[in-house]
Amino acid sequence: MQLGLVGLGRMGGNMAARLRAAGHQVVGFDRDPHVSEVAGLPELVAALVPPRIVWVMVPAEVTDATVDEVAGLLAPGDLIIDGGNSHFSLDRPRAERLNARGIGYLDVGVSGGIWGREEGYALMVGGEAAHVARAQPIFDALKPAGEYGFVHAGPVGAGHYAKMVHNGIEYALMQAYAEGYELLRASEYVTNVPAVIKSWRSGTVVRSWLLDLLDQALDEDPELAGLRGYAEDTGEGRWTVDEAVRLAVPVHAISAALFARFTSRQDDSPAMKAVAALRNQFGGHAVKRD
Amino acid sequence: MQLGLVGLGRMGGNMAARLRAAGHQVVGFDRDPHVSEVAGLPELVAALVPPRIVWVMVPAEVTDATVDEVAGLLAPGDLIIDGGNSHFSLDRPRAERLNARGIGYLDVGVSGGIWGREEGYALMVGGEAAHVARAQPIFDALKPAGEYGFVHAGPVGAGHYAKMVHNGIEYALMQAYAEGYELLRASEYVTNVPAVIKSWRSGTVVRSWLLDLLDQALDEDPELAGLRGYAEDTGEGRWTVDEAVRLAVPVHAISAALFARFTSRQDDSPAMKAVAALRNQFGGHAVKRD
Repeated sequence: MQLGLVGLGRMGGNMAARLRAAGHQVVGFDRDPHVSEVAGLPELVAALVPPRIVWVMVPAEVTDATVDEVAGLLAPGDLIIDGGNSHFSLDRPRAERLNARGIGYLDVGVSGGIWGREEGYALMVGGEAAHVARAQPIFDALKPAGEYGFVHAGPVGAGHYAKMVHNGIEYALMQAYAEGYELLRASEYVTNVPAVIKSWRSGTVVRSWLLDLLDQALDEDPELAGLRGYAEDTGEGRWTVDEAVRLAVPVHAISAALFARFTSRQDDSPAMKAVAALRNQFGGHAVKRD
Repeated sequence: MQLGLVGLGRMGGNMAARLRAAGHQVVGFDRDPHVSEVAGLPELVAALVPPRIVWVMVPAEVTDATVDEVAGLLAPGDLIIDGGNSHFSLDRPRAERLNARGIGYLDVGVSGGIWGREEGYALMVGGEAAHVARAQPIFDALKPAGEYGFVHAGPVGAGHYAKMVHNGIEYALMQAYAEGYELLRASEYVTNVPAVIKSWRSGTVVRSWLLDLLDQALDEDPELAGLRGYAEDTGEGRWTVDEAVRLAVPVHAISAALFARFTSRQDDSPAMKAVAALRNQFGGHAVKRD
């Protein structure tokens, strides 16, 4: 099968390699001319035999512009797939714009990160069943072996929605291990914390891929001494909490994990300055001053 | 190797079966005469050749009494292992009582539940290295195959401590999946929630044994319609939060998961009655009355 792929970064580049290894023909464009395989989007589209499928794998902030630019070069019957981390609310308007020109649209949440090239990418797909069926050979090549790792989650938007919730869960899972790790470190009882984490990889209720990764990190740096306790967020945790607020769903652990990241990025806490000030005001409690 | 096993309940019974399958000789006592293999603890001790090892696997609330009763029948050089869910703070006093009589003591946190008989039990051990070495053949038979699933975590108390933190993490992991599940259910985007959960079992960042179990539960009851949203706790989540308070470790997600269980068990919320009353007082906002 033939696929146009726009965006050959860390994700797109590895996906192209996995698709080619499965025997598919990939024409790749990247705005970095050193990476791109064609001169531009017109050349990419010209290299594909209609009806075309073009997979867009670019940063969320340029996805809408890229999709519209690609669409301007396509013809009725073609199909655009957005595999980036778009907010799900953009998918339906995007699909409607494309449908008005006879172009199909699928939104795909992609998980797997740098491990995906070898282990496969988990795919969560939103859109019409006929479009999903057309792209299924591509999905089958990208997904992990076995019965899991692919789902047609619902209509347009459902793929990115499922991926967003996946990432929200991921925030709280990471926070769970992190809190347990810190408690083990703080206690005087357990003398070999990395060995405890390692032992949990088999037979326990908490075994998981994230736990395996934590063990690997501790193998490389048993005290995590080379790291600062500073964690960015890429937006999907916030979107999950936004959605929980919209739908009035109590997400105690997910929101706690998100807020813990915000705290981690503060040099000092205005809120805790206020707490210190109030303790000093009403009780004369000592404060620390800069 | 020969082992006395006190407590042949769901855990002890399966552990005896796994030990025997590995070729060890197990003499089992249970206070239920229909289950017990000997008439009493004296008969159990008499059936073992010194130096003896007796593994106590009884509910936490009767462990101290059982250990002391067993110790009264043992001789210097014997070893008692507590594999139950004792609070770690009881281990050191217990070990000191036993050591005064020349009897060794190991505390072992055991994970694996009803799956352990086939897949093996993850073991977290606290105590002296010489005692651990003596019992190692027993541990090797109980643990899962492979390099993980066993750790000598530190001195007496470290085994139960590690198991406690394991369970605290487990609370927050379960809460993470549960919140994501509820959000997917609440949204109008994803139309096939169980299929999304199932797809996550491979290739995703959130893949884990707990996720596999959630998928199995949804296979059996796709809406979880037969269940009430009511969750007990067996104490280790509370102990983890107690320890976090003692050591001033911020455990946002673990405490949120514990408190979510408390909320789940309330028929009504006194706190939210108070919120409703205050909203009514200052703003004349409508309230719901019984």
